[in-house]
Amino acid sequence: MQTNKRKILNDPVFGFISLHSDILFDLIEHPYIQRLRRIKQLGLSSLVYPGANHTRFEHALGALHLMYSAIEVLRSKNVEISNEEAEAAMIAILLHDIGHGPFSHALEHTIVKGVTHEQLSLLMMQQLNLQFNNKLQTAILIFTNNYPKKYLHQLVSSQLDMDRMDYLRRDSFFSGVVEGTIGSDRIIKMLNVHKGHLVVEKKGIYSVEKFLIARRLMYWQVYLHKTVITAEHILINVLKRAKQLTNNGVKLFAPPQLKWFLKNDLDPECFENEALRKEMIDNFVKLDDSDLISSIKVWCNEPDFILSYLSKAIVNRKLLRIKISDKPIPKSKIEKLTNKLLTQMELSDDEADYLVFTGEISNSVYETNSDDIMVLTKNGKAKNLEEASDIDLKALTRKVTKHYVCYPKELE
Amino acid sequence: MQTNKRKILNDPVFGFISLHSDILFDLIEHPYIQRLRRIKQLGLSSLVYPGANHTRFEHALGALHLMYSAIEVLRSKNVEISNEEAEAAMIAILLHDIGHGPFSHALEHTIVKGVTHEQLSLLMMQQLNLQFNNKLQTAILIFTNNYPKKYLHQLVSSQLDMDRMDYLRRDSFFSGVVEGTIGSDRIIKMLNVHKGHLVVEKKGIYSVEKFLIARRLMYWQVYLHKTVITAEHILINVLKRAKQLTNNGVKLFAPPQLKWFLKNDLDPECFENEALRKEMIDNFVKLDDSDLISSIKVWCNEPDFILSYLSKAIVNRKLLRIKISDKPIPKSKIEKLTNKLLTQMELSDDEADYLVFTGEISNSVYETNSDDIMVLTKNGKAKNLEEASDIDLKALTRKVTKHYVCYPKELE
Amino acid sequence: MQTNKRKILNDPVFGFISLHSDILFDLIEHPYIQRLRRIKQLGLSSLVYPGANHTRFEHALGALHLMYSAIEVLRSKNVEISNEEAEAAMIAILLHDIGHGPFSHALEHTIVKGVTHEQLSLLMMQQLNLQFNNKLQTAILIFTNNYPKKYLHQLVSSQLDMDRMDYLRRDSFFSGVVEGTIGSDRIIKMLNVHKGHLVVEKKGIYSVEKFLIARRLMYWQVYLHKTVITAEHILINVLKRAKQLTNNGVKLFAPPQLKWFLKNDLDPECFENEALRKEMIDNFVKLDDSDLISSIKVWCNEPDFILSYLSKAIVNRKLLRIKISDKPIPKSKIEKLTNKLLTQMELSDDEADYLVFTGEISNSVYETNSDDIMVLTKNGKAKNLEEASDIDLKALTRKVTKHYVCYPKELE
Amino acid sequence: MQTNKRKILNDPVFGFISLHSDILFDLIEHPYIQRLRRIKQLGLSSLVYPGANHTRFEHALGALHLMYSAIEVLRSKNVEISNEEAEAAMIAILLHDIGHGPFSHALEHTIVKGVTHEQLSLLMMQQLNLQFNNKLQTAILIFTNNYPKKYLHQLVSSQLDMDRMDYLRRDSFFSGVVEGTIGSDRIIKMLNVHKGHLVVEKKGIYSVEKFLIARRLMYWQVYLHKTVITAEHILINVLKRAKQLTNNGVKLFAPPQLKWFLKNDLDPECFENEALRKEMIDNFVKLDDSDLISSIKVWCNEPDFILSYLSKAIVNRKLLRIKISDKPIPKSKIEKLTNKLLTQMELSDDEADYLVFTGEISNSVYETNSDDIMVLTKNGKAKNLEEASDIDLKALTRKVTKHYVCYPKELE
Repeated sequence: MQTNKRKILNDPVFGFISLHSDILFDLIEHPYIQRLRRIKQLGLSSLVYPGANHTRFEHALGALHLMYSAIEVLRSKNVEISNEEAEAAMIAILLHDIGHGPFSHALEHTIVKGVTHEQLSLLMMQQLNLQFNNKLQTAILIFTNNYPKKYLHQLVSSQLDMDRMDYLRRDSFFSGVVEGTIGSDRIIKMLNVHKGHLVVEKKGIYSVEKFLIARRLMYWQVYLHKTVITAEHILINVLKRAKQLTNNGVKLFAPPQLKWFLKNDLDPECFENEALRKEMIDNFVKLDDSDLISSIKVWCNEPDFILSYLSKAIVNRKLLRIKISDKPIPKSKIEKLTNKLLTQMELSDDEADYLVFTGEISNSVYETNSDDIMVLTKNGKAKNLEEASDIDLKALTRKVTKHYVCYPKELE
Repeated sequence: MQTNKRKILNDPVFGFISLHSDILFDLIEHPYIQRLRRIKQLGLSSLVYPGANHTRFEHALGALHLMYSAIEVLRSKNVEISNEEAEAAMIAILLHDIGHGPFSHALEHTIVKGVTHEQLSLLMMQQLNLQFNNKLQTAILIFTNNYPKKYLHQLVSSQLDMDRMDYLRRDSFFSGVVEGTIGSDRIIKMLNVHKGHLVVEKKGIYSVEKFLIARRLMYWQVYLHKTVITAEHILINVLKRAKQLTNNGVKLFAPPQLKWFLKNDLDPECFENEALRKEMIDNFVKLDDSDLISSIKVWCNEPDFILSYLSKAIVNRKLLRIKISDKPIPKSKIEKLTNKLLTQMELSDDEADYLVFTGEISNSVYETNSDDIMVLTKNGKAKNLEEASDIDLKALTRKVTKHYVCYPKELE
Repeated sequence: MQTNKRKILNDPVFGFISLHSDILFDLIEHPYIQRLRRIKQLGLSSLVYPGANHTRFEHALGALHLMYSAIEVLRSKNVEISNEEAEAAMIAILLHDIGHGPFSHALEHTIVKGVTHEQLSLLMMQQLNLQFNNKLQTAILIFTNNYPKKYLHQLVSSQLDMDRMDYLRRDSFFSGVVEGTIGSDRIIKMLNVHKGHLVVEKKGIYSVEKFLIARRLMYWQVYLHKTVITAEHILINVLKRAKQLTNNGVKLFAPPQLKWFLKNDLDPECFENEALRKEMIDNFVKLDDSDLISSIKVWCNEPDFILSYLSKAIVNRKLLRIKISDKPIPKSKIEKLTNKLLTQMELSDDEADYLVFTGEISNSVYETNSDDIMVLTKNGKAKNLEEASDIDLKALTRKVTKHYVCYPKELE
Repeated sequence: MQTNKRKILNDPVFGFISLHSDILFDLIEHPYIQRLRRIKQLGLSSLVYPGANHTRFEHALGALHLMYSAIEVLRSKNVEISNEEAEAAMIAILLHDIGHGPFSHALEHTIVKGVTHEQLSLLMMQQLNLQFNNKLQTAILIFTNNYPKKYLHQLVSSQLDMDRMDYLRRDSFFSGVVEGTIGSDRIIKMLNVHKGHLVVEKKGIYSVEKFLIARRLMYWQVYLHKTVITAEHILINVLKRAKQLTNNGVKLFAPPQLKWFLKNDLDPECFENEALRKEMIDNFVKLDDSDLISSIKVWCNEPDFILSYLSKAIVNRKLLRIKISDKPIPKSKIEKLTNKLLTQMELSDDEADYLVFTGEISNSVYETNSDDIMVLTKNGKAKNLEEASDIDLKALTRKVTKHYVCYPKELE
């Protein structure tokens, strides 16, 4: 029975992924995790990168795989990690994204507005903990950074965590943007622990620099690609409109799990109300990419012009035009576009905002507000990366912000 | 405007895919092809190989890419292919799978029972031909093997066609079954034309042998993997049951495009009836993976035991047990399982067949009923592969058949 | 000090190779192994595959890496392997090729004629054993198949040994013949032990079949590539001629370690004579590719026509023409070529044989005279591969022989 | 005959490399280029990275391959390049390194001291031009930047030339330092010509940034790896000592082509003297890695302590200790080491300098003294990279210098 749970999974990125503990197998079998098979890691990015159909399930497995490697590396350097701690760290990384819904970014602006995916992850981990007889206790402490060995949390969440080690490699792999690939193997081999904190050894510093630049590239080339931005914003507007129409009494096609979110406005208080919270979770765990895609296809035929226009934009990939600028989009430009739109179509001002809108995107290579990446020098001291590097990394820490405006191509 | 259509697409398998003709861009933009983005190439295989989420859209692009390479290779060997023919061959391969629905195999046994995907592909190509002012005429002739240069059809459909060159590499890549990879580059470099037929040059013979063995491996390890077989058969039974219940007047949740197929029984005559045909096509082109997945999740809560049991089996990956055997499953074994089932649950005999059933799978490395692979020897003659190889390939041509029985794990 | 020996080495094929025992580090530091850095794994194959410059040193490390993986896999299946045994198996594989000289194949026909590389490997391992205080005792028992656990020897030398697992992948990698690659990862994961012998689990059978076909491809496409054959045979003749001239009193340029072998005729008895054996080993361990290449370049200017002609053939890659045939080359053809040669150049009959000669090459996918590959079926029994496979592998076991003739291109 | 010259070569990095012109085939056949097969691209780096045995021959082919791609890309963007120009650019890149000797860096400090490899490359190209009936005229103009279309020279030599595109990818591939890999495909796809100069399109800017960081990483991790530095400096001292001894009348073993360089002191004037120049070239084209390696092995047994000590250091990889520092090594430290050495061994001060010595290494990511990388913005203007980037690239342009001291490990 037991050996049966030590499965080996095929993974295109890492080859074979082994499960080193029975509870990992049982957790993966749980519907909460199986559900991640139906949620794409990169949402609508596949509209730009056709290969980017990989799911949050694969990412969870990949991060688990790297966590195991990292623990092995640290142990080989005489960092003491008990089997229980190792298991807990693996559980924490396996579950770290469990609270993500389909198209998370879009959902967090619309139908699950009052709730962050971090809150949901924790809530779901707590539920699993009950079902698994408290065996996730240590994992939850690590996840919430309440466990004494801080470096275990840092392996789950920090600038060099296994989460981004996996997602950068994986997203690079499936998008075909090979330049985004990172030397996760080497960085992990260079990890160590210094005074309870995760550090990277001096000779890994070039790999870390390259990791940061690769991350920057992935942000601009994939995550913040202008076509992805416009697609995501259209999706936000589709859901906003659907919710608005539902509130106005229009009966839209939707599976029950989606309908529930269209009808209910969430706010932080829904967490206080146990019945409501339970209802929300019940619906949330049934919701995945398929519900949104299937419904949006049906909405293409809705009489409401806004909803059908935007739904078709996504389904047939006839997206809004997007223009990117280093400076904020001048109001005059937006007004001009809106006016042009209003002369062509009979819409209210509010409705026009669904089709002509602006926003901003920003990214910094190195997050200065989060914990610094610490480098272990040869004399056994830890310096932060900026100090340890022989190039001026501050240059790379500048946050870069860009502005965009979207509008129907017919307005050109 | 024109150059804008010469797009370069990122592909994880081939790097960059270029579009070498404007009409290819326009076809890719068409909703018929955009729809392929929402249909997984390998259906439920991702339940075994988590990375296998690639779509028919990517496959169509990959096959297009290889077709271009093959044409370039043939031209470099002084095979005359006009630009129009090259474009037509590229269109034919781009569209060759356009008639596939979601989970084709399952659908062809159930809701689109009377219609093959080949018929649908042709039908849809003809519709596109009308929309594109007859510009697909030559492509259709090539696709249907009515074009004089037979080798162009063979590039689209034969034992060494660009279809399988792409799908074997792609399925191997995304499943992570690296051994299934084939040397498509080398085989294509070795292609030539002899008396109007596609041949492979003598020195490519080892590559072809290896291609055949890799294909055999992919069949048993991926396409006919026992867990995939049980999952697909469960899906067939889910759809059969849903159709049966619908016929009995039960109102099941489903988006309209799926509901249409649940309600209508198709038969070859539906092609004769223009209105019906049009209706079918209209619904078919709206149908994709998301409709089935989304609906099956809702059906988990249906009062009908069979439908909810099987739906949950797929959604939560709690599949039926499958046993494979080299010999047919003895009736006695099936009866025993059925009886056990009937003692545990209140079901009719008909209903029991949804949960306990048998089937067979078979595969032969080298298809002897299709056109032989022809090898061009150094003295300029063509021999068939079996003759040209210095090992006894007949051994590999034997069709291997296996038998299976599926039943609920609770019966063990 | 100790940790310093647990080095990580970069390897293009496997990424990182770790040394899991101090003695491995010390052995690698030894001049006997350092010398393998200067001996190409594939001799003159780089004349056909420009990337194939990898050395026996890299191969030894790669095989070591796979041995460690295999041991880990077997241990995870409850095969008991002590640390001492594991270390010994790793030593045995690290040193298995230590007795190879430069261009082994050519040398074994000429300057080290009376001695096989297996004899030399054992001799050198015994010498190392003395230097390492008998710590190689178990490794030698495993290497010579005198250790009770037969499967440890089979990991070093059998049809599924770590030697060929590494060399097939490595040679495929560096030659760029990607089709020759094998799923070493998967085969190793499928290894097990049954009644003291190495077996492969049933579900690995397709991987093994593919491994055999890939091996066949590598033989014909790389190891027995006709241009490689002609180059190697030219090298043999260069060395034969150099030896003949040396015996005749001609003073040829050569470094002392090569000169020794040109002067001395070896025979099995040289092993009996301790002083001679020592002298031979002393010279042998100093000999590598550079001595032959450097000398052959100088020999291009020798007055002896045969020596300079053939030396230039190698140095400037102006090789003899080679023709391959399925049947033996008819004597008449050889006579015709020889006569033509003699009319063009003033040579004795003996000398003509250096420029016009024949030979044969043969290969069988599956070696029937060696231990069979054994397959572990699900009911816990072991069958040989031919029985276990559902295709007729006998077809692949046939030994294929080809014949060739080489002659100066000027004769055409 | 003609088609026979359109060979396809296997390359592990790029797959297949095609020759698109007969003269390329003929040049590759020439002994001047065949000789590059015997010169490793990275000299002694294989002492650190065992896989780095690739040769200058492979690099020349790879750069040729990229040149062809770059020309195809530019032509697709309506940059007019005639067939003659394309051929000339391909010749220029094929031959750009033809003047490199074995272990170039070491040689340029010692036995070919008065001559740079650039001078030799040009000299040899001019010789080839004579042999090829002036067909290399345009190639030489491009190589020397005397051809009006400056961008053709920039493809051969600039911060984004095909030389470094190939060597960074290739050195990264063979060393196994995967993080050093660059997106050469993508950068090449983004190339364009603006006012006669090579530019990179705006959307390629992240790829270029990453290219610069990867290059920085390769410098510190591979090219300037401290063990490589010490090995190269030892080689320099071996050759210096061998020359010194030769000048003093000691007869050292060496093949004639090496002996010539040991005996003759070169200076710029040797180019003026035609006979001497011819003699030098004649010997130079016969010299390769094998001559140095073979001789150094023999020198291990020389009575001169310095020569044998340093020779053994290389042959058995018992290198001198190297210490790296950000600041210059204090004289006191060197004196201390030298004194310790002199107490242990009987050496003159001059001789001690062979065993205890210092040096410096430096690298800047972005070369500000060479032509800037120019970026083509969307409005059709060219900006230099620093201006076009939204991060402060100046940070990366700082030249970083490190200092080192080497000494025998026995002194510790």
